[in-house]
Amino acid sequence: MGRWEPNAQGRLEQAAMELYVERGFDQTTVAEIAKRAGLTERTFFRHFSDKREVLFWGASSLQELMVDAVTNAPSSLGPIATIASALEAAGALLEQRREYPRLRQTIIDANPELQERELIKLASLAVAMTDALHQRGVGDPTARLAAETGIAVFRIAFDRWISEDGGRSLCQIIRASFGELKEMTASG
Amino acid sequence: MGRWEPNAQGRLEQAAMELYVERGFDQTTVAEIAKRAGLTERTFFRHFSDKREVLFWGASSLQELMVDAVTNAPSSLGPIATIASALEAAGALLEQRREYPRLRQTIIDANPELQERELIKLASLAVAMTDALHQRGVGDPTARLAAETGIAVFRIAFDRWISEDGGRSLCQIIRASFGELKEMTASG
Repeated sequence: MGRWEPNAQGRLEQAAMELYVERGFDQTTVAEIAKRAGLTERTFFRHFSDKREVLFWGASSLQELMVDAVTNAPSSLGPIATIASALEAAGALLEQRREYPRLRQTIIDANPELQERELIKLASLAVAMTDALHQRGVGDPTARLAAETGIAVFRIAFDRWISEDGGRSLCQIIRASFGELKEMTASG
Repeated sequence: MGRWEPNAQGRLEQAAMELYVERGFDQTTVAEIAKRAGLTERTFFRHFSDKREVLFWGASSLQELMVDAVTNAPSSLGPIATIASALEAAGALLEQRREYPRLRQTIIDANPELQERELIKLASLAVAMTDALHQRGVGDPTARLAAETGIAVFRIAFDRWISEDGGRSLCQIIRASFGELKEMTASG
């Protein structure tokens, strides 16, 4: 088997996701993932540090995209509109990946350790968004309030998108959820 | 040493907190906690399942208090005002404990494993508050949106209360933070 394998990362990810769904995350070994992908364990470890990273490697690029969106938002946008636009950018990226985000969520929901990891990832995301708002000159508590509330709205919108399974796009649901937040806070 | 020790739980908690601050959570053993409290390890394990529980045993009663506050809120209150009143009830309880919540937060902030546990606790709290709103006839996504946003506001208000160190009460800061949320979502 050669050193270079075409789309090895994609094949390993695909194989891992299938096995996590079929057998559960805990019951799947790296050896089995590599075998299913027709690759070696060594190739697996060139792409992922462990089997959990298959589910979390995208988090840093998603965070980068969202921070960039906050940084580059028109200066006319207020804090919450800025965060909303960053979340829509993330939503658009997730939608491009079609079934992957749904499958990933199913795997995470089935495993408490993965749920913890996901909570930590979302908390870091809120910190990064808060910092990006600070860079735009937004002070605290407004920056943190906008970032944390935004992450909460995003999680809820994401779950709705998964459960609606069709109809509206994730971006549409994110936009609608911010509208509902506004209405809810206004009416008390 | 007799079986019954006056205020054993309080003495163990006090000793544990002191040691966690002095030496760090990881570097403290149950034997040391018991010794500092003038009690036995056996007595420790009659009150706490492990040294982490010293920091988290109050979570379930706090959750119960908040769920009761949601359940018993006047029916005229909207979802977000209901959640706000539950958070103020929690805030009042925390204030009664004086220096304890501040000390506890310092210990948690210094330890990633405890931070994870705290995130999980807050996520469970949001689920419990969502369910309590459902019981009041509030549908989704409003119930979840109100509960998750409320928990985000609470965390921010709590951190401000700790850093302000004096001035306003936790309840005042919670109320102010909800006001800021309202203003922020209205202005976009």
